[in-house]
Amino acid sequence: MNYRVGIVGAGQLARMMAQAAIPLGIEITLLAASANDGAARVSPRVIVGDPGDPDRIRKLAEQVDVVTFDHELVDPDLLDSLAAAGHSVFPRPDTMRLAHNKRRQREQLSADGFAMPAWRTVNSMEDIHLFEMLYGRPVVLKAVRGGYDGRGVWMVETPEEFERVYRDACNKGAELLVEEFLELDGEVAVLVVGSTVGDFKTYPATETVQRNGICHELHVPARFSSDIIRRAERMALQIAESIDLVGVMAVEFFVVGDKVLVNELAPRPHNSGHWTIEGATTSQFEQHLRAVLGWPLGSTALLHPAVVTRNLLGPDDGSDPFERIPGALGSGDAHLHWYGKESRSGRKIGHVTSYGPTHDEADTVAGRAWSVLAGREVEAQA
Amino acid sequence: MNYRVGIVGAGQLARMMAQAAIPLGIEITLLAASANDGAARVSPRVIVGDPGDPDRIRKLAEQVDVVTFDHELVDPDLLDSLAAAGHSVFPRPDTMRLAHNKRRQREQLSADGFAMPAWRTVNSMEDIHLFEMLYGRPVVLKAVRGGYDGRGVWMVETPEEFERVYRDACNKGAELLVEEFLELDGEVAVLVVGSTVGDFKTYPATETVQRNGICHELHVPARFSSDIIRRAERMALQIAESIDLVGVMAVEFFVVGDKVLVNELAPRPHNSGHWTIEGATTSQFEQHLRAVLGWPLGSTALLHPAVVTRNLLGPDDGSDPFERIPGALGSGDAHLHWYGKESRSGRKIGHVTSYGPTHDEADTVAGRAWSVLAGREVEAQA
Repeated sequence: MNYRVGIVGAGQLARMMAQAAIPLGIEITLLAASANDGAARVSPRVIVGDPGDPDRIRKLAEQVDVVTFDHELVDPDLLDSLAAAGHSVFPRPDTMRLAHNKRRQREQLSADGFAMPAWRTVNSMEDIHLFEMLYGRPVVLKAVRGGYDGRGVWMVETPEEFERVYRDACNKGAELLVEEFLELDGEVAVLVVGSTVGDFKTYPATETVQRNGICHELHVPARFSSDIIRRAERMALQIAESIDLVGVMAVEFFVVGDKVLVNELAPRPHNSGHWTIEGATTSQFEQHLRAVLGWPLGSTALLHPAVVTRNLLGPDDGSDPFERIPGALGSGDAHLHWYGKESRSGRKIGHVTSYGPTHDEADTVAGRAWSVLAGREVEAQA
Repeated sequence: MNYRVGIVGAGQLARMMAQAAIPLGIEITLLAASANDGAARVSPRVIVGDPGDPDRIRKLAEQVDVVTFDHELVDPDLLDSLAAAGHSVFPRPDTMRLAHNKRRQREQLSADGFAMPAWRTVNSMEDIHLFEMLYGRPVVLKAVRGGYDGRGVWMVETPEEFERVYRDACNKGAELLVEEFLELDGEVAVLVVGSTVGDFKTYPATETVQRNGICHELHVPARFSSDIIRRAERMALQIAESIDLVGVMAVEFFVVGDKVLVNELAPRPHNSGHWTIEGATTSQFEQHLRAVLGWPLGSTALLHPAVVTRNLLGPDDGSDPFERIPGALGSGDAHLHWYGKESRSGRKIGHVTSYGPTHDEADTVAGRAWSVLAGREVEAQA
C-alpha cells in the first residue's frame, strides 16, 4: 500500500512538504509549472504543466489519494469538479475559494463577525473617493485575486494615484477593493490546523516583521501582550471552525493598539510557520500532510523558549548567497533552508532559523547566519 | 553553482541523507542496486547498477563533487583508483578499507593500543582450538568481510559447531576471525565526525540495546557511569584522529565491568545515531554531508534531557506496519521514520524517536508508538 499526496505547485512549500513526507513514507507527486521549480528538483514524481489546466490537474488527482496545494492560484470551480468526481481535495474547494478571492474572504469573515480593517469593494473611482472621505488618506487598494508578497497591494495618497491604479486594474480586468490605511503596532500570524474529523489546533502565535509588504522575520513567542496573543489564537481557531478547515492555514492579523484585526487567510503551510520545522513538536509541513490524509494531528507545542526565523531575499548586487552557505554554517548553530530557486533581487530564496534560551540569543545566531548569506558581513571563521 | 554529493548505495542511510540534503541545497545522486531501494524512491537522480561495478561507480563520481557511502560493501581498491583519478572520496579509501575488513581493523586498532576483545585470525581448525583453550567456550567466529546485522557472526560452543562454521566459510572462500565471548554489561556506540581540515567532534555516547546481534533500542544519555561514557567518547575521538577521519563514523563498544572495549567501526551515518535527527542540534546525516563537502561541522549538543529510539523490524506474522502509521501517530508525540522498504520478517524497516524531560517519559512515548506499529497492541485512540 501507499499513502499518496498530490501537490498543485512546486515552490518552496511543496519542497518542504516533500521533505516532511520522506520519514512518514508518504509518496508525493507534484504538478509543477517547470521541472526547475524548487520542489521538482528534489522529487522523483513530477507532472510538468500549468496548474490551471484541467487535464493536468485531473491527471494529478488520478494518481494520488488526496490533492493539496502549494499556492492558491487554482480555479476553485475546477476543484469543485474534482471533488464532484470523487477525488479528495483538501483544503476543501470552498476554503480555496476564500483564499482565491479577497472580497469573498472579507465578506464571509465580516458576516461571521470577525474584526478587520474597514474595506469596500471598488466598482468605480467614486467608490474610492467616498471611502477616502470616510477613512482619510492614504488608502490601500488591493487586487481581489492573485495578490502575493506585496504585488497586488498599493498604498495610494493622491487622486492621481487612485486614478492610475484604478485605470490600470480596469485595463487588466482586475477587480479591486479599498481598505483603510492603519498605523500598525505590528503583525501576528497564527497557524491553525483542522483534521478531517473536526479536530482543530493552533500553533503559538508568530510575530511577523514585514517591510514593503514582504515578511522578513518571525519571532516566537510573539512580543505582544498575552491578551493580544490569546485573542489572535482564539480568532484563528474560530475561523478554522467556521470554515470547517482541513489542513494547515495561516491567519494574518494586524495589531493596532489593543485591537487585533484579521488581515488575510492563507489555507496552506505558510511562510509565517517556517519556524515550526525546528521550533515545534510537529512541523507545519508534517502537520498539513497528516491533516489532508485524515491522520491524527500532532502536538503544536513550542520546543524552545525562543525561536527566530529570518527570510533570505535575493541580494540586489547580483551575488549568489548559495556560495556563502559554508560561511553561514560556520557562523553558529543556525538551521538553513534553501528553496532551490535561482537568486533574483528581492525574491525569497531561503530562510534561517535559530532557537535559544532567550529571544536575544536566538536572534543573534539567526542574524549572524543571515548576514553572511546576505553578503552583509565578512564570513565568520569556521 | 551546485553542491553535488554522490552516494554509493540507496538504503535508509542514503534516504535520510537525501532528506537532510534538501534544506542545504545539496544535490544528491545515488548509485542504487535497484530503483525500488528506499532512497531511490524519493530521489530524482538515480543511477541503477551494482556498486561493485567500476564503470557505474566511475559514472557516479563524474557527476558529483564528492563520493560517499550508504554501506561499506565497496572494493577499497576501486576507491583508491577513483581518488587517484582526482575524484574526492570521503570517508577516505583507507578508512573504507578498515570498515571493509574486520581483521585489518583489529590489527590497526591493536597496533594503536586500543582495548578490544581478545581475537586471532583463523587459518585452520587448529587456530580455533588453540584460541578456545586460552579463552574458553563459547567462542565467537566472525566473517572478516561482509558482516552485517548479525549475519556473519556465529557464537559457537562445541567442536562440531566450530567445524561446521569453519568448513562452511572455507567452502565460500570466506576468511574468519575468532574472538573471545564476553558476558556484556551492555553496549555503547559513539558517533564521531571529522572534517577535511582536521576538526573532530563526538556526539554524546549512545547506549544500544542489542538482541541476537540486531540493535533494537537507543538510549541517550547512555545509562552507564560517567567514567565509562567519558572513556568511550575519548577513544572514539582518538580513533577518528588516528585514521584522519572525514565524515561521520560510529565506534561500537562493549562494556564489561569497568572495561570499555572497541567492537567495531562503521565509517558512515549509523543506526546508533538515528536519535540525532530530533535529539541533537545537527543530525548525523546533515553532519556527514557537511563533513564530506568540506563545510564547517555543526554542534553535536543534545537537545533534550532524554532521547529514545526504537527500531522497527518487519513482524513475523506478515502484517504490514505501514498500515498502522496513523494509529502510531495517534498514540503520542513519537517521530516516525520510514525506510521505504517492503516489510519482511526481521528486516529493519523504520524507527521511532521520542524525547522528554526524563528517560522514562521518552521511553514510554517511543514504546507506545513502536507497539502500535509492531502490532503488539490495539491502536491507541487518536
